[in-house]
Amino acid sequence: MAAVRIREAEEGDCGDVLRLIRELAEYEKLSEQVTISEEGLRADGFGENPFYHCLVAEILPAPGDPQGPRIVGYGLYCFVYSTWKGRNIYLEDIYVMPEYRGQGIGSKIIKKVAEVALDQGCSQFRLAVLEWNKRAIDLYKALGTRDLTQEEGWHAFRFEGEAMEKLAGR
Amino acid sequence: MAAVRIREAEEGDCGDVLRLIRELAEYEKLSEQVTISEEGLRADGFGENPFYHCLVAEILPAPGDPQGPRIVGYGLYCFVYSTWKGRNIYLEDIYVMPEYRGQGIGSKIIKKVAEVALDQGCSQFRLAVLEWNKRAIDLYKALGTRDLTQEEGWHAFRFEGEAMEKLAGR
Repeated sequence: MAAVRIREAEEGDCGDVLRLIRELAEYEKLSEQVTISEEGLRADGFGENPFYHCLVAEILPAPGDPQGPRIVGYGLYCFVYSTWKGRNIYLEDIYVMPEYRGQGIGSKIIKKVAEVALDQGCSQFRLAVLEWNKRAIDLYKALGTRDLTQEEGWHAFRFEGEAMEKLAGR
Repeated sequence: MAAVRIREAEEGDCGDVLRLIRELAEYEKLSEQVTISEEGLRADGFGENPFYHCLVAEILPAPGDPQGPRIVGYGLYCFVYSTWKGRNIYLEDIYVMPEYRGQGIGSKIIKKVAEVALDQGCSQFRLAVLEWNKRAIDLYKALGTRDLTQEEGWHAFRFEGEAMEKLAGR
């Protein structure tokens, strides 16, 4: 099994991250909804007040391998806030390329997010999962997560484009 | 009807905001879960890289009224990120004291959050609501929001304390 390294993304990784974002959207048959660009990812994640943070999983080349490291997964997160418990981390996306699954790369990304969270004084680690994604739910439950929609009845709501502009009176 | 102003919270408002956070938790009969302190709110919201942003609703005194403005509601939000659409805003909490409801203060806070969102280049505005909170859901739906848990099956998951430490191997 090849060696895997999880590290913080650098600005130069944005092209690879976008490739994986699109792969994930294609898998979900929703790729027409992806409007983000590499330039957007660079500007929003690597300025003075970044809007997100990102980890990448890369396969390290074997000795003598002419190829460099290959990025095969990512986890993109933000810091949010609980008015009861203080600092929280929110994992927006986690993805591993299908041909690299089953090696524990997803778990490694999640563990690294938990480390970052604790280092930053976060008391909770949130994420959202589609209810049909049994593979992901089984993994997260095995790792000790709670399903707050099932337990407490939380629903995710969203205002988009026109509704937001109308709200803001524009 | 008294005049209401929605403005950005200042560090000196943290005592009032904490009072309202506790009121909300008492209403939900969960006040024992509130561990946040005024010092924590000050440190996390008003440093160089704030973990949250907050709006307050205050009732302005009538001419000749010896009392100053009174903070009667708040909305606490963070910036998050969609890998499809870019910058998003997330409204963690919104609360108006019961005796000041029915005057549109909650709607004013939400509208202001939408304004901030657009000013910051956010394309989406997210929030989470308990499924029994019909009053809130009716308001948000009337304002044009979508229920993504109902429509797409998104569930909110969370790792807490011990599960997080175990994940991080600590």
